[in-house]
Amino acid sequence: MRTDNFKSVIDKYKIIFFDAFGVLKNYDGIVPGVQKTFAYLQEQGQEYYIVTNDASRSPMALAESFHRIGLDVISHDRIISSGMLAKEYLDLKVNEGIVAYLGTLNSAHYIDSSGLHTLPVSAINTTNIDQVNALVLLDDEGFNWFDDINKAVNILRKRTIPAIVANTDNTYPLTGNNEVSIAIGGIASMIESIVGKRFIRFGKPDSQMFMFAYDLVREKRTVSKKEILMIGDTLHTDIIGGNKFGLDTMLVLSGNTLPDDAEMRIKSTGIVPTYICNTAVID
Amino acid sequence: MRTDNFKSVIDKYKIIFFDAFGVLKNYDGIVPGVQKTFAYLQEQGQEYYIVTNDASRSPMALAESFHRIGLDVISHDRIISSGMLAKEYLDLKVNEGIVAYLGTLNSAHYIDSSGLHTLPVSAINTTNIDQVNALVLLDDEGFNWFDDINKAVNILRKRTIPAIVANTDNTYPLTGNNEVSIAIGGIASMIESIVGKRFIRFGKPDSQMFMFAYDLVREKRTVSKKEILMIGDTLHTDIIGGNKFGLDTMLVLSGNTLPDDAEMRIKSTGIVPTYICNTAVID
Amino acid sequence: MRTDNFKSVIDKYKIIFFDAFGVLKNYDGIVPGVQKTFAYLQEQGQEYYIVTNDASRSPMALAESFHRIGLDVISHDRIISSGMLAKEYLDLKVNEGIVAYLGTLNSAHYIDSSGLHTLPVSAINTTNIDQVNALVLLDDEGFNWFDDINKAVNILRKRTIPAIVANTDNTYPLTGNNEVSIAIGGIASMIESIVGKRFIRFGKPDSQMFMFAYDLVREKRTVSKKEILMIGDTLHTDIIGGNKFGLDTMLVLSGNTLPDDAEMRIKSTGIVPTYICNTAVID
Amino acid sequence: MRTDNFKSVIDKYKIIFFDAFGVLKNYDGIVPGVQKTFAYLQEQGQEYYIVTNDASRSPMALAESFHRIGLDVISHDRIISSGMLAKEYLDLKVNEGIVAYLGTLNSAHYIDSSGLHTLPVSAINTTNIDQVNALVLLDDEGFNWFDDINKAVNILRKRTIPAIVANTDNTYPLTGNNEVSIAIGGIASMIESIVGKRFIRFGKPDSQMFMFAYDLVREKRTVSKKEILMIGDTLHTDIIGGNKFGLDTMLVLSGNTLPDDAEMRIKSTGIVPTYICNTAVID
Repeated sequence: MRTDNFKSVIDKYKIIFFDAFGVLKNYDGIVPGVQKTFAYLQEQGQEYYIVTNDASRSPMALAESFHRIGLDVISHDRIISSGMLAKEYLDLKVNEGIVAYLGTLNSAHYIDSSGLHTLPVSAINTTNIDQVNALVLLDDEGFNWFDDINKAVNILRKRTIPAIVANTDNTYPLTGNNEVSIAIGGIASMIESIVGKRFIRFGKPDSQMFMFAYDLVREKRTVSKKEILMIGDTLHTDIIGGNKFGLDTMLVLSGNTLPDDAEMRIKSTGIVPTYICNTAVID
Repeated sequence: MRTDNFKSVIDKYKIIFFDAFGVLKNYDGIVPGVQKTFAYLQEQGQEYYIVTNDASRSPMALAESFHRIGLDVISHDRIISSGMLAKEYLDLKVNEGIVAYLGTLNSAHYIDSSGLHTLPVSAINTTNIDQVNALVLLDDEGFNWFDDINKAVNILRKRTIPAIVANTDNTYPLTGNNEVSIAIGGIASMIESIVGKRFIRFGKPDSQMFMFAYDLVREKRTVSKKEILMIGDTLHTDIIGGNKFGLDTMLVLSGNTLPDDAEMRIKSTGIVPTYICNTAVID
Repeated sequence: MRTDNFKSVIDKYKIIFFDAFGVLKNYDGIVPGVQKTFAYLQEQGQEYYIVTNDASRSPMALAESFHRIGLDVISHDRIISSGMLAKEYLDLKVNEGIVAYLGTLNSAHYIDSSGLHTLPVSAINTTNIDQVNALVLLDDEGFNWFDDINKAVNILRKRTIPAIVANTDNTYPLTGNNEVSIAIGGIASMIESIVGKRFIRFGKPDSQMFMFAYDLVREKRTVSKKEILMIGDTLHTDIIGGNKFGLDTMLVLSGNTLPDDAEMRIKSTGIVPTYICNTAVID
Repeated sequence: MRTDNFKSVIDKYKIIFFDAFGVLKNYDGIVPGVQKTFAYLQEQGQEYYIVTNDASRSPMALAESFHRIGLDVISHDRIISSGMLAKEYLDLKVNEGIVAYLGTLNSAHYIDSSGLHTLPVSAINTTNIDQVNALVLLDDEGFNWFDDINKAVNILRKRTIPAIVANTDNTYPLTGNNEVSIAIGGIASMIESIVGKRFIRFGKPDSQMFMFAYDLVREKRTVSKKEILMIGDTLHTDIIGGNKFGLDTMLVLSGNTLPDDAEMRIKSTGIVPTYICNTAVID
């Protein structure tokens, strides 16, 4: 399979959107050499944004996690996370009462919104269930699966309220040994199918993620979609989402899509990136 | 909605298949009056079998649970459970190695088979994973959901082995207050969709359940499908399964299908029972 | 079920998005009295847009169809159709070669784009299939189903190209007698499942439709999502799409959702409109 | 990938079930050499049955089609087709009125049953729709797709009746050039999803097919499932169906599963045949 030269490709675009996991970092830290890419982009005056299906932390905390692995140039105002969309939804659409959540305390802090009372699913009981006006699924950790997934099912059977999924991924990779862990998106699909209701999902490949980033860009300058490149490691989120939004797309082979599988997967899914590069690193 | 007279209907059949939960028993014990039905059937020389999606115990233990609530006439040799099919599968198809399971110790005892070593998923590790030749999903209790559901996913990613689901139900009712609990069938669907493999499911509406019962009947006598009635409370397991197998079917309104919903549900699903009765009780 | 007063509701918003079918018009023409609504909006200086899953014609042709039934105020620049998104996709993402389509000649004229050659699926053969760079599903009429649906399947098996669905609806109502016709969205789902590839769908509930309208509004003025109301007759397109985009939503009972079913459907789907009104008519 | 020696494998079994298409015959006629297999089986006194998802003709007509290509030994009483199960369903469960069908006249002749009036969907109209008591989907040919698929949808919206699918396949191969045609099973899935009702499907992998064959065998002799081998070319019908029924299974690489793909497909689906052979031919 032919791959493209990374530097030649990015030279054609004014704005670059990067996925985080599998592109900039991996289980064991930064993708080696990726700092050079950002140094080059700054030198050339090209802008960059991180567009990530991560609802476990605030953009501020996400930025810090980049700094810790040596990517100091990524500031919080360049990060668009699916958690930000979940928060915007609550700000716009839920005006009062309790927002119950599945996730860690960290993930919940972020969605706190004026006028709303954020409570873990475990704290919902007969005395307060009638005030629950939304259920938000944020993270696969921070709660007891048996108790709280079952409780979430029963909350949705009793209350006609929106259920918001802040991360559409089904799994995420565990360190090193090719093992995965079920992500909150996978749990959400099980609950959705059991209660038979329609959940609201935020995150790539949904256009709203790209639009959020596009709006950020347009606040500063006039730009056409033709001038933006989306770089990601996953066909069914980064690439099809970018394509559908009208962006050119680059698949990198440093994460979910392995070099040996890329061609077969593109063929079998019909999801075609504009470019394929080994990594998002200038060599 | 017209309902039929229970006694007039059963008088037409030589053999009756009963679903257990929602027909003979409920959260708080026996469906009142159901003993009379069995007394009448014995008087008339009509045969009966219990056909149940319950893989949590052996037929022997299931029979005892009927005895405890006053249904002494139901002996273990009249019970066909989805667990029996899972056990037959292992007996016929898995000849050696470890069978890993999700479920209680009770459910696992039952599937123990000569030549096979039955181990909970929690006991699988790098030293024995290569001997795992089947994964069986038996019950939603008896294990840590977070640890062991994730472990089951990774076992199936590493090993190309059959995954057997011994109970196809997605939920089961909890006592009284209209709450439900996620059954192992619901968990199985999540794991199946995450690993992208095809599971083997035993239990109604699958024909194999009805065939197992039909074979038991035919060991003793010659019988036509026309002479058998299937009685159940659930359209998408008991009724469509019985219909497809070629049996006449009766929906009772003492369980999953409420009197007020029955007509609408029949219309919206297109699953039509031959008869509808309030309960499986002779009045 | 409580319904809201239409006039009191729209008085709260600066911008109104209307679905077309089931809200403004029906099988037999205009929804009676809807002209008054537009007269009122113009009087008050409130803006309005039509947001419709209709890819069968250009906005110009759609506007004319409104004029013919007496809605002269709806000009083409106030119409956002899913066909416009399909066209934008082709403009941005497909640069050369043939675009094969299923649909009428009218629907195809609209997506014609410089540099692209638009051909019906029936005109694709061994001499030109290698130049086909996209397949667009536009309308359920204008082709032979047996010949051309089968041909579309085989084109997608041979070519690794995007398949674009310009109308996500599964069915549309036929005149009067409660009958429906399968829409191109329903055919698209069959083809997608048969070829196992991932299609790109444009139309409500997808956010991109709402974003397109939102961008049109923002070209003229600064506006917050809080100031926009989406009015529609269908929970799983208009209402959930509007909700997810962060808009307030109104369900009207003059189309797909019947007055007797509305409450049950809201409860069973968990899709909750901000308001419910009988029609989009000021009384 | 290791393959097994065909003769050594079949020597271990008393009864062999064969899939037809891709195992015994192909687009251009008989799989060369397959006659020798049947000569050998007869010599050894091993029994054989053909288990096929073909509802387009009667077993008699299917037998003739084998004779025409040189397989004279396959008599009609050794053929089990999904059409036979559809016919049994009608015999047992539908007692009067009209059975509407999609398919050819040939396919309909076969399901004709005493007391029932078989009519193509095209002949259903307002004068007779109230007598329609079942819809049977038999074949993808013999009707106008646009007119009659839409009509079938509207019949199922008006009538609460069973819809029977006599062939679960989604596609079938066309001669030679790697093209396929949509089978009635694919059309059935589209109609089912559009009307939201539950269809009754006959055909592998469903256990009822295997049971029908198993019952035929047991009429003549006592046999254990351990003594039966199922041979097929398709993992998700022949192999998983055989496995689930408790039979040993052999995948042959002369049809749907290509030699180069077999290993990857087994791994990705988790459907594991007991044996893999190149063809069902003794060499």
